[in-house]
Amino acid sequence: MYSILDLQDKFNLLIANQVFKKKPHKLYDPIAYTMSHGGKRLRPLLTLLACDLFSGDVEKALYPALAIEVFHNFTLVHDDIMDKAPLRRGKETVYKKWDSNIAILSGDTMFALAYQYALNTDSNLVPKILSVFSQAAIEVCEGQQFDMDFETSPSVSIDEYLEMIRLKTAVLIAVSLQIGAIIGDASEEEIIEMYNFGNNLGMAFQLKDDLLDVYGEQEKFGKKTGGDIVANKKTYLFLKALELCDSDNRQILNDTYNNSAIDSEVKIQKVKQIFDKTGVKNAVESLMLSYYDAALHCIKNIQVDETRKTQLLELASSMFSRNY
Amino acid sequence: MYSILDLQDKFNLLIANQVFKKKPHKLYDPIAYTMSHGGKRLRPLLTLLACDLFSGDVEKALYPALAIEVFHNFTLVHDDIMDKAPLRRGKETVYKKWDSNIAILSGDTMFALAYQYALNTDSNLVPKILSVFSQAAIEVCEGQQFDMDFETSPSVSIDEYLEMIRLKTAVLIAVSLQIGAIIGDASEEEIIEMYNFGNNLGMAFQLKDDLLDVYGEQEKFGKKTGGDIVANKKTYLFLKALELCDSDNRQILNDTYNNSAIDSEVKIQKVKQIFDKTGVKNAVESLMLSYYDAALHCIKNIQVDETRKTQLLELASSMFSRNY
Repeated sequence: MYSILDLQDKFNLLIANQVFKKKPHKLYDPIAYTMSHGGKRLRPLLTLLACDLFSGDVEKALYPALAIEVFHNFTLVHDDIMDKAPLRRGKETVYKKWDSNIAILSGDTMFALAYQYALNTDSNLVPKILSVFSQAAIEVCEGQQFDMDFETSPSVSIDEYLEMIRLKTAVLIAVSLQIGAIIGDASEEEIIEMYNFGNNLGMAFQLKDDLLDVYGEQEKFGKKTGGDIVANKKTYLFLKALELCDSDNRQILNDTYNNSAIDSEVKIQKVKQIFDKTGVKNAVESLMLSYYDAALHCIKNIQVDETRKTQLLELASSMFSRNY
Repeated sequence: MYSILDLQDKFNLLIANQVFKKKPHKLYDPIAYTMSHGGKRLRPLLTLLACDLFSGDVEKALYPALAIEVFHNFTLVHDDIMDKAPLRRGKETVYKKWDSNIAILSGDTMFALAYQYALNTDSNLVPKILSVFSQAAIEVCEGQQFDMDFETSPSVSIDEYLEMIRLKTAVLIAVSLQIGAIIGDASEEEIIEMYNFGNNLGMAFQLKDDLLDVYGEQEKFGKKTGGDIVANKKTYLFLKALELCDSDNRQILNDTYNNSAIDSEVKIQKVKQIFDKTGVKNAVESLMLSYYDAALHCIKNIQVDETRKTQLLELASSMFSRNY
């Protein structure tokens, strides 16, 4: 069995060995830049840990794990253009540092590279891995579109929001674990259980992210807090606050959220005040924990020695110890 | 053996049966819109004809052919954002009809869909097909980046230009034929020969396209003529004209090309006058024919009954009967 640190080392070495410095430089420099930023490498670690859970050959999971990480970073590069985000992990986004065209095309190349990496495993596993990977890729795009639709939609239900974050975030975490399980030669039932584990974990993870966007410390979080409020993102926090508050505050909250003329900092403060009054932070934390419990329930159903599960559970737990 | 018309019918039926009308509509409507425009369906036909050439089961090549067509259309959707092109096949481009964000994300989804389609064939062929497909996808992106780089580059050599169009255009035509040959169970040598056939065909095809951009009839060509000149594209026409003309005209040609203040129509007329003086049209046609001959030479090396080659040769020939 490998420790998380072992797997991080293996994975970081793999990334370090990829040659992203090629011609045309305007295409590959942004890829090297994006991939060098680190980030948590959460998804590839989940793939490797899932493979190891079933005593699979972790070496065979390395490139598929890299595929998932490169794909994830591709989605960030394109999302940042669409969201006009200036910062990502505390650094300038690709479209800001270069331009939109370069961000579009470097992103496309990363997507193709991701598939090329995903092919680098046992060839008999390739059709299955690429099938679930492609399905996840499509769903991630659907999630991003729903996310953009919701910004201008007059009303979004909590169910619609939860389905959106499932598509945009949870599915890729789910498929990271699923692909690890496939390479680990898990049974069909176990592969599904690992997907469900990831799906629930991903939901909890995104709800935590929504919380951090409002209540996080900017330096630790790596991007400006309050971004969701400024961008009129109808997050669970916002939707639940609407449900919990009285009609006067509901009116103020709606008006403030949809007021494009208001100063950003003032908007963030006004919205936060209402959030605080409604106690919506507790409501989000409660929903987050129920997803987390559901995730733990899935992992309990996996019939492997409990000691094999400790690393995976530790990583899952660390996803929620991120500070405000 | 199938006729071109048979295969067109089969392929068009396959496209017609794809459900692109799904939620989120802003994601899928542009895909349905793009895929309904038709175009020549050249690349998927090449895949099907290549498969049929080796007496392969054409049914097994249908979805991989669709993958190539959807991928090709994805590249057009993204290229049109980057090139700020208002029209494509006589219709508004996706980014014009909707917006850039929608064009980015619909394009991304088409890319993922393309991979999903490519998986829909004999599973033992999937690793090989996806490997060549991914490599081609990466090279197409490289070609597009070189194309953009050349717009602002002070000097581009003819060799650099030819390598750029190989990457941007010829490689996908080559891989369309290669994938057909793989599914048709051709030998390794035959698969390479088919790739080379497509590579040469693609070079000739792009040179024809460059000619049509300057000398084509707008209605038949489906987009505004002179677009390459307005966009400062350093095409073979331009680069060869620079080589062929005297120093005075070279100065005028360079100055006119790089003059961003000049009226588009005036620019097109001035550049065309110099092109006509140098006889560069003949030079392009001559190079185009030499690629075409090289393509025919490749197909001659394929050891199948000559009658099996007629459809493929007919399609190749039709690529050059497009009118000015």
